[in-house]
Amino acid sequence: MDIEQFRKAGYQAIDRICDFYYSLESRNVVSSVEPGYLRRALPTAPPEQGEDFSKIADDYQQLIIPGLTHWQHPSFFAYFPTACTFEGILGDVYASSVSNPGFNWGCSPACTELEAVMTDWAAQLLGLDNAFLNTTGVGGGVIQTSASDSVLTVVVAARSLYCKTHPGVGLDKLLLYTTSQTHSVGAKAALVLGLKERSLDVNLDDGFGLRGEALQMALDEDIKAGLHPFFIIATIGTTSSGAIDHLSEICSVAQSYPSLWIHVDAAWAGVTLACPEYREICHLDYINRYVHSFCTNFHKWGLVNFDASLLWVRNRKHLTDALDVTPQFLRTAQGDAGTVIDYRNWHLGLGRRFRSLKIWFVLRSYGAEGFRKYIRKGIDLNKVFSTWVSSSPLFELVTPPSFALTVFRMKLPPSKDHHTTSQDFLTRKLFERLSARKDIQVTQTVLHGIFCIRFAIGAERTEEKHVMAAFSLLCDEARKVNEDI
Amino acid sequence: MDIEQFRKAGYQAIDRICDFYYSLESRNVVSSVEPGYLRRALPTAPPEQGEDFSKIADDYQQLIIPGLTHWQHPSFFAYFPTACTFEGILGDVYASSVSNPGFNWGCSPACTELEAVMTDWAAQLLGLDNAFLNTTGVGGGVIQTSASDSVLTVVVAARSLYCKTHPGVGLDKLLLYTTSQTHSVGAKAALVLGLKERSLDVNLDDGFGLRGEALQMALDEDIKAGLHPFFIIATIGTTSSGAIDHLSEICSVAQSYPSLWIHVDAAWAGVTLACPEYREICHLDYINRYVHSFCTNFHKWGLVNFDASLLWVRNRKHLTDALDVTPQFLRTAQGDAGTVIDYRNWHLGLGRRFRSLKIWFVLRSYGAEGFRKYIRKGIDLNKVFSTWVSSSPLFELVTPPSFALTVFRMKLPPSKDHHTTSQDFLTRKLFERLSARKDIQVTQTVLHGIFCIRFAIGAERTEEKHVMAAFSLLCDEARKVNEDI
Repeated sequence: MDIEQFRKAGYQAIDRICDFYYSLESRNVVSSVEPGYLRRALPTAPPEQGEDFSKIADDYQQLIIPGLTHWQHPSFFAYFPTACTFEGILGDVYASSVSNPGFNWGCSPACTELEAVMTDWAAQLLGLDNAFLNTTGVGGGVIQTSASDSVLTVVVAARSLYCKTHPGVGLDKLLLYTTSQTHSVGAKAALVLGLKERSLDVNLDDGFGLRGEALQMALDEDIKAGLHPFFIIATIGTTSSGAIDHLSEICSVAQSYPSLWIHVDAAWAGVTLACPEYREICHLDYINRYVHSFCTNFHKWGLVNFDASLLWVRNRKHLTDALDVTPQFLRTAQGDAGTVIDYRNWHLGLGRRFRSLKIWFVLRSYGAEGFRKYIRKGIDLNKVFSTWVSSSPLFELVTPPSFALTVFRMKLPPSKDHHTTSQDFLTRKLFERLSARKDIQVTQTVLHGIFCIRFAIGAERTEEKHVMAAFSLLCDEARKVNEDI
Repeated sequence: MDIEQFRKAGYQAIDRICDFYYSLESRNVVSSVEPGYLRRALPTAPPEQGEDFSKIADDYQQLIIPGLTHWQHPSFFAYFPTACTFEGILGDVYASSVSNPGFNWGCSPACTELEAVMTDWAAQLLGLDNAFLNTTGVGGGVIQTSASDSVLTVVVAARSLYCKTHPGVGLDKLLLYTTSQTHSVGAKAALVLGLKERSLDVNLDDGFGLRGEALQMALDEDIKAGLHPFFIIATIGTTSSGAIDHLSEICSVAQSYPSLWIHVDAAWAGVTLACPEYREICHLDYINRYVHSFCTNFHKWGLVNFDASLLWVRNRKHLTDALDVTPQFLRTAQGDAGTVIDYRNWHLGLGRRFRSLKIWFVLRSYGAEGFRKYIRKGIDLNKVFSTWVSSSPLFELVTPPSFALTVFRMKLPPSKDHHTTSQDFLTRKLFERLSARKDIQVTQTVLHGIFCIRFAIGAERTEEKHVMAAFSLLCDEARKVNEDI
C-alpha cells in the first residue's frame, strides 16, 4: 500500500468509524455469533498473493463487527466500562504511525517524556501527593497495560526489596495478603510468582471492606507461624461490589510493620479522585501519606482507550533495583548518565507502545472540568438507578450503591413462601433471562454465597433514558421470572 | 468531540501521516532534543477547560514529532527494525475504535477468534508443525506484547509444571539456562520470578551459538550440585550478532532430560522461516519435533506494527494450568463449557487489545509472497553491505553476516602499529562519531570483549541506495578516525 492508497483507506476507515458510532445505539450490545463462526468464514492459511485493501476493509465490516460485544453501547452495563473516546482513537492513530518500541529515552525521547509528564498530570488531577510525581526524581508514575501488570510489577519490586532487607528468608516463607473481594489480579500475581497468598475474610456488615483488626489478627498468626507477610493489596472499589477496604485502619496497623508494602488497587474507582467530594471516601489522605504504590486504570472509567493502567510508586528505585538488566546493546549515553527515565526498568517487559499520547489528547480535549463532569454523570445516573431498585417491590440492594455500580438481587414475591423458592433461585433465573437477550448486558457475582447482579454505569454515551429503559426491561424480566415459578 | 468533529480530526490525522511519510527521508533519523525538552514545553498540570482539538493536533506536530527517533527511516540501522506499515496503522485504527478488554471469548468473540486464526495463519506461513495450531485443541498460538512477556509466560508455565511433577523441590533449587548471548529477556525473567539463572559460555569459533556439549556439561555439574535445571532459552538470531544456537545438539542432549523445557526465542529472525531456504539454518525440523514453545515478533521484521509478539506452545494446558484464576465475575457459559479459548489464561495479565486485526490486514494485503519478498530484500541488502565491509581496507567482519545483520569493527590502518592504538579504540571512536550524527543510527555491542558496531537492515523503506549512502558515510567517518590518531 503506497501513501495515496493509505490516504484513501484511511479516510474510508474514519468514515466507517463515524457510521459505526451513528448506528451504535441501533445495534445489539451483545454479539449473536456462535463459537467458531469466524474460523468457518476464513481460509485456513494466509493468501499467497496480496489482496486489495478495499476487500479487506469490507470483510472487517461483514465478519468482524458482527462478532463484537459493544462495550461502548449506551446499554452496556456489564463488568466495568472500557473507555473509547474519539480523542483516544486519534491518539492511537498517531502513535501507531510512528511505531517504536519506546524502551528507553533515546528510542524516542518524546515517548518517555510525555509519559512522565502525563503521569504527573494525572497525579495532580487525582490529588495525589507530590511525592508521586516524576519531578521529584524519587517517586513517579508509569503506564502499564492493566491493573494485573501493575500489581505484578510492584509485587516483584516488594519481593526483591524484602529479600534484600531480610537475607536468608526463603521465597516459600513470603506471604501476600488479599481479601476475598480482591480482584483475581492478586491471586494471579501470587500464582505467577510462585508465592503464598492469604485471602483475608471480609463481611457484609463491613461493606466487604477489610478492617484493620482482621489484618492485625492475620499478621499475628502468620508471623507466629514463621511466615513473612511482605505485601498487601488494598482495594478502593472492588469488582464484585465496589467495596472499599478500610485503608485508614490498614495503614494504622501497618505502621508497626514497616516492611509491609501497601499497594492500593483502585483500577476502577481511582478516577473518582478527580472530584474532590470523593477523596475522603477513597481515603486519599492515607494513600498520600502511607501507601507504597497506587494504581488506577484510565482505560476503564477514565475516557482513555484501552490500555492505560497508571501506576505510581513512592520510590522508583524499588522498581529499578528489581527490574534493571542493561546489556551492552541497550546502553545509551543518557541512560548511563542517569539524566533520563528508562521506562523499560519500570515494568516487566522491554518494549512499550506510545500510550501517553492518548492520555494527553483526552486530558486536553476534556479538560479537568470535562473529566469530572463525566465521572459525576456516571455517579448521578447510578444514584437514580439504585433508588429505583431499592424502592421497587421486585428487587433489593445487596450492598449500598458504590460510585457508578449497583449490586442487587430479586426479592421474594409476597405470594410465595420460602419453602418453594429462594432469592438466589429467582436472581439466577433473572440473570439467565437477561443473558439470553442481546440488547443489554449485565454481569453476575456472588457475595458471601448470595447470587447478585451487577449493574455498572460508565459508557460515555449512556444517558438517563438508557438507564430508564434498562430498569424497565429488568422489571419486565423479573415479572416473567415471578410468573414462571 | 462529536462524530463530525472526529471525522474532521480523523481526516486531518490521515493527511498529516501521509505528509509525514512523504517527508520522512528528508528528516533526520535521530532526534536532536535534549533531556527535559518536552517537560519545559508543557504546562505542569492538565488544563481546567477543554481545548480545541486542532490546537492539540498542531502541538503534536510541533512538540512530539521533533522528539521522535524515526525507526521507519530508511537510514535507521540500529537495534532491530520495528515494523510500521500502513496496513498495521489501519489495523490499529479499527481496533481502537471498538476498544474492549478482550479477556475472554464473550468479551468480543471476534477478537478471540481472529487471534486464534491469525496465529494459525502465521504458524503455517513459517512452516511450524501442525502441533502448534489452535485447531488441534492441544497446542496453540497467542499474541503477547513482547518477547520478554512471551518468555516470562512460558517460564511461569514451565516452573508450575516442574513443581507439580517434582513435589518438594524448592524454588531456590530451580535453574534456568541462558547463554552469554541470550537477550536480556532471559535474565529479566529470572529476576522477575526470583529464580536462579546460569548463563552458559559460547564462543567465537562456534559463531556464538550454544553447543550440545556445553549444555551437557552444565547439566552434569548443576544436577550434581543438587540444582534442578528446568528451562533453557535457545536463540535463533541473537541480538548482538544474529547467532544461532545449535538447536539440533541441544535437542539431542535434552532427550535425556524430559523435564527440561526448551523455549526458542526467535524474536527477530523467526520471520525468515517464511522463506523455505532459511528453514534448515533456523533448525525448523528441531523446533517442530522437540521444542515446547517458540516465539517470534512480527513487530520487528514482520511488517506488523508494535506490538505483536507471537508465541506458540505445544501444550496449551501448561499455560492454563499455571495461569487460570477464574472468579465468579469472569465466568461465562462458553468458558465453563470449554468450547472456546479464554486468552486471559494464556498470558500474565487479564485485559488485552485487539492485536490480531493488524496481523490479518498485513498478511492479506502483502500475501505470503509479498511477505517473503520483503524478508528476502533485507537479506539481499545485507549481503551487499557485508561484502562491502569485508572487502574494505577500513573494516572487518567480527562474525559472519546473519540474515539482515552485520557486525563489524575497524581494522588497524597499515601505517599504525599495535602499540599506539587498538581496533577497539578505533571502533569506539567511530561509534562516537556516528552517534554524534543525526542522519543515521547504528548500535554498539561487545562480543567476548570485542567492541563492535551492529548494522541491522529491515526498515520497510530501506533500499540499496540508502545502504550505499550509509556505507559511504561509514567510510568517511572511519577515515576521519584514522586521521585523528
